[in-house]
Amino acid sequence: MMKLFGNRDSGHAYKVRLMLNLAGLPHDYEEIDLDLPRELRPEPFRSQSRYGEVPLLLHAGRAYVQSNAILLHLAEHTGKFGAESGERMTRVREWLFWEANRLGFSLANLRFGLKFTSTGAASDGQVMLRNRFNADIARLDAELADGRAFILGDSISVADVSLCGYLFWPEQAQVEIPPHVQAWLDRISALPGWRHPYA
Amino acid sequence: MMKLFGNRDSGHAYKVRLMLNLAGLPHDYEEIDLDLPRELRPEPFRSQSRYGEVPLLLHAGRAYVQSNAILLHLAEHTGKFGAESGERMTRVREWLFWEANRLGFSLANLRFGLKFTSTGAASDGQVMLRNRFNADIARLDAELADGRAFILGDSISVADVSLCGYLFWPEQAQVEIPPHVQAWLDRISALPGWRHPYA
Repeated sequence: MMKLFGNRDSGHAYKVRLMLNLAGLPHDYEEIDLDLPRELRPEPFRSQSRYGEVPLLLHAGRAYVQSNAILLHLAEHTGKFGAESGERMTRVREWLFWEANRLGFSLANLRFGLKFTSTGAASDGQVMLRNRFNADIARLDAELADGRAFILGDSISVADVSLCGYLFWPEQAQVEIPPHVQAWLDRISALPGWRHPYA
Repeated sequence: MMKLFGNRDSGHAYKVRLMLNLAGLPHDYEEIDLDLPRELRPEPFRSQSRYGEVPLLLHAGRAYVQSNAILLHLAEHTGKFGAESGERMTRVREWLFWEANRLGFSLANLRFGLKFTSTGAASDGQVMLRNRFNADIARLDAELADGRAFILGDSISVADVSLCGYLFWPEQAQVEIPPHVQAWLDRISALPGWRHPYA
């Protein structure tokens, strides 16, 4: 049995929980209180989370961290979600690294500044992050403009699961979702097993 | 024969060129002028660089983009640099995603604001980026504090190659390198095939 340690406000943890649900993988779940200092968080989370962050996945006696690295592991474990071929895995990895450095940074940190800091919209970096978000979401909208169902074509992959991680909270980041991205999010949320991060 | 398209001021491109040199992989190199608008950059770069960015690696008729995804491909191609075992690849992938979202963002964008924008140190985001850089470099210094030679132990992996990408330009980002990180950089720069990004 797999066990996931996450937090309901973490889009990075949401990605992994969504993947487990979409793939129908049975798992336990434990909520980690991120208001606790790292040294006070419960075991085994504290010693197994190598960067001190959620998500952490325990699977077959091993600890997996970093949301996109966990997604790669789960794709390989299922043999689906992008792991069907070497060519699909190459494309998946490129999208996962793009996400880590682009949309998963700009959108996650826009939201963080607005929702979780006392300075809110006046936080340093909000202008830079919004400019980057605008470029990132335009790139994603252009990618999906040909009407394909999912990033790699007809079937979902962990690229979709990663890229949507923070996009179900647009109001918290005060952003607008363009039409091709919205239609793709609607297709994801219609899949069996999908749940909103706060559900 | 592999062909790399890069730019001498890109730490992302430097990572890949460094890997090719450390692994002794013969390759051609073409410099891309990043001052040109994307639609005016030369072919085949323009049509093959899926995100419009350097680096792009052409290998055996396929195009590889996103520096850390290229590093994973090259590790698998050589069977070394982290590809020696599944356990090492798991750790490598975690570090590569950490780099993409942490040090490879904070340091790269600190430097970009200071060196390549007219607003310099007054650019929005410099405070946030410096706070993140300080946390990131402290994390890396703590990781290396046990005196191991490289991130995964006695031998170099693409985790080292990725993490060092922007660290040979500390003066351009106006940062100081702590002692364990500096000793590790010195070990990297003593390896056969190493060259400074501007060499």
